Amino acid sequence: MELSALYTDLYQLSMGQVFFLNNNHRQHAVFDYFFRKLPFNGGYVVFAGLEDLLEKLEGLKFTPADIDYLNAAGFDRNFTRYLSDFRFSGNIYSIPEGEILFPNEPAMRFEGELLEIQLIETLVLNLLNFQSLVATKAARIRQVAGDRILADFGLRRAQGFGGYHASRAAVIGGFQSTSNVRAAADFSIPATGTMAHSFIQHFGDELQAFRYFAGNRPHKCILLVDTYDTLKSGLPNAITVAKEMESRGERLEAIRLDSGDLAYLAQQARHLLDEAGLHYVKIAASNQLDEYVIKSLLEQDAPIDIFGVGTSLVTGEPDAALDGVYKLSHSNGRPAIKLSESLSKTTLPDRKQVLRAFTEAGHLAGADVVILHDEGKPEVMHHPFEPDVSLSLGGMHLTPLLSPVMEQGKRLHLSRTPQEIGQTVAGRLSLLPREYKRFENPHTYKVGISTKLRDLRDNLRRQYKK
Amino acid sequence: MELSALYTDLYQLSMGQVFFLNNNHRQHAVFDYFFRKLPFNGGYVVFAGLEDLLEKLEGLKFTPADIDYLNAAGFDRNFTRYLSDFRFSGNIYSIPEGEILFPNEPAMRFEGELLEIQLIETLVLNLLNFQSLVATKAARIRQVAGDRILADFGLRRAQGFGGYHASRAAVIGGFQSTSNVRAAADFSIPATGTMAHSFIQHFGDELQAFRYFAGNRPHKCILLVDTYDTLKSGLPNAITVAKEMESRGERLEAIRLDSGDLAYLAQQARHLLDEAGLHYVKIAASNQLDEYVIKSLLEQDAPIDIFGVGTSLVTGEPDAALDGVYKLSHSNGRPAIKLSESLSKTTLPDRKQVLRAFTEAGHLAGADVVILHDEGKPEVMHHPFEPDVSLSLGGMHLTPLLSPVMEQGKRLHLSRTPQEIGQTVAGRLSLLPREYKRFENPHTYKVGISTKLRDLRDNLRRQYKK
Repeated sequence: MELSALYTDLYQLSMGQVFFLNNNHRQHAVFDYFFRKLPFNGGYVVFAGLEDLLEKLEGLKFTPADIDYLNAAGFDRNFTRYLSDFRFSGNIYSIPEGEILFPNEPAMRFEGELLEIQLIETLVLNLLNFQSLVATKAARIRQVAGDRILADFGLRRAQGFGGYHASRAAVIGGFQSTSNVRAAADFSIPATGTMAHSFIQHFGDELQAFRYFAGNRPHKCILLVDTYDTLKSGLPNAITVAKEMESRGERLEAIRLDSGDLAYLAQQARHLLDEAGLHYVKIAASNQLDEYVIKSLLEQDAPIDIFGVGTSLVTGEPDAALDGVYKLSHSNGRPAIKLSESLSKTTLPDRKQVLRAFTEAGHLAGADVVILHDEGKPEVMHHPFEPDVSLSLGGMHLTPLLSPVMEQGKRLHLSRTPQEIGQTVAGRLSLLPREYKRFENPHTYKVGISTKLRDLRDNLRRQYKK
Repeated sequence: MELSALYTDLYQLSMGQVFFLNNNHRQHAVFDYFFRKLPFNGGYVVFAGLEDLLEKLEGLKFTPADIDYLNAAGFDRNFTRYLSDFRFSGNIYSIPEGEILFPNEPAMRFEGELLEIQLIETLVLNLLNFQSLVATKAARIRQVAGDRILADFGLRRAQGFGGYHASRAAVIGGFQSTSNVRAAADFSIPATGTMAHSFIQHFGDELQAFRYFAGNRPHKCILLVDTYDTLKSGLPNAITVAKEMESRGERLEAIRLDSGDLAYLAQQARHLLDEAGLHYVKIAASNQLDEYVIKSLLEQDAPIDIFGVGTSLVTGEPDAALDGVYKLSHSNGRPAIKLSESLSKTTLPDRKQVLRAFTEAGHLAGADVVILHDEGKPEVMHHPFEPDVSLSLGGMHLTPLLSPVMEQGKRLHLSRTPQEIGQTVAGRLSLLPREYKRFENPHTYKVGISTKLRDLRDNLRRQYKK
């Protein structure tokens, strides 16, 4: 899916023209991507969207129609001629896609010519903010679902074509499959699905509808049992068809509940299926699910094997957006800073690296430290906003998180599938102590800064305050 | 932007195969699009997405690569051969895009061959739910903003490529312009923008940065004044540049505030600008705005002329999704119904029309009635779920809302621009009494059903209950 380089904010192009006409456009610039606030009142963010972004940056260009549009819109002809040959040629450093991330630490660093690094801001934010939001939501749902099957059913309630990226991010966060065939095909994700109420309504006779479906389906057979009456009609008919399938040497995969009291109905359904000797038939549930509803269902011992999650997953309800930003940290040979009335919104200057602390046992130690990219491992880290708070890093293993992922506009690594990235997520979250993962008032993962970085920031602040 | 017919839920294709192999696929079917719950605790929905949907339906097809994917996924070869020639050839009836809409009344009716009408469900819901959500949010913001300028600045926080449709819907709801250049170009919307903090940071010297921008900008000049210190640095520098522009016979369009106490800063800025004789320079504000913040700013008499709204607009916070559904109402020659334990989730059978009641004075009368498509104007309407509640329609002018918009897969009308559709919205909302528009506990717009429709539904329910 392509939207061309015109999928950006107008001001990127306006500023680009000013840079170009002043001949500043090839000056060197460095921007950081980071976010400030954890979504869902949670304790972590799953970083997603990186490989999708790199692919789009490699192909980024203005079409001839785009150039015509910009000419008609009043842009300078020399500038639009420059844009017609534009290709992204910057260097990018990033934490791996699927790594977990905390507020105020740079997840990515973009270096290159001022104009190109500024121009891509909107695309960077558009892709990373949303996919990280949905991957985080998916990871929370995976957290409560244990090893049960999770399927993304959200496309119909997704925010327009955002549904395309939502399905990718859902699998990164821990879902097995998606109903979204376009995303399944493009991202090599298993596609999944059941049947609609309208299918049964159309035939009128539920048993006959189930028989048709069992006979001609292209996939594993999952029968929707709540069109007329779940326990009195849907389940008895599904059991009849399951027995007929058995006699043909086939197996009914699952029945699906989509309304009513899912805990009660799942228990009743399990009982009826088991009584009929259909222990292998799974129970799938859908209908306004999220991490809280699934947690509650499982606390009630609802024997549900498959959860189909839609709206809340693909839109990242109730937050709907991650507040990621893209800030200049070095420009034209100098470290750059964005001041603010509050220290917490003042940016961290210069090229930076993030070190993650691990315990001797290999667990996450609850501390990341942001350092200058070329300094050694620090002994101590400082609270970024509270002057007198610091933490000794003695005895911790510090591992750098940012590494080169794009050089002069070319990707350095082969893409991984969303499922492969999902394994990174699962591995990382297994190392994160549970107090950071709980839903209510999770522990705050500490993100500190090195002495050198703190001193640089504070010196720059003082200079600008004058 | 194209995603092909594969942008759908897998089950549409699974059911399609069953219909095809049973030779049911050309049977006639009718589906309705409607929603059940008003977003934002508001009193209305602005219907949006229609013309975008019709355009996509006209071009809907499976690419050869799509067919290869489906073959590899195990679909029947005769069925995929059928899909490779698939074109949508149905008939569609709709309320106009930009009309206002209430729960449980069909906004659209889709008629055609069972397979095609089922297949498009996901696309219909994906496009209409989201655009109607955002257009409604935009209309609420317009409602409080009066005749001030509203600009969509949301692309960076939009849900991936959903940002494309969000900008279209924002203008339908009442915004003047968007920062999203792709949407501006494709939908003929004015593009707008200012400058980023990074622009000023890069030059280091704010005054010099403003001068460069004023000298080489392609558009009206709006200067961002909060990079270092709004009142002590940004505004004095902007005033200097405005005076320099005056001496060249140009005019500074506006200054923009993006942080701090917007009410206070706008008042101070207005004062400083007026003192300098710059009465014509407008004040633009951005930073986490929504209808409530804008209302509060204006109640404080903040002299803001332009509001740039981002996240809350393009994601429809805090709801993130409209719960629109697509339900079978007639199939294979018979009216169809979907039962539910609760009458409120039982669907309305058969082909339907919606009549909107107007008062003698031409105002909306607070009552819509859903009728069978071929019945005359009713004298009375019934509450859809409460048996003994009815309302006389005597003395009201009843106007049908649904009319043909697509015939055998071809659109019947030329497209309108989002701004033209926005005029429909403004016109409609001006006829809606204010008690339906207030944010706190708005009046409930009554949607009733005719006697004939009620009797048909209740008869079908009794038949199925047996």
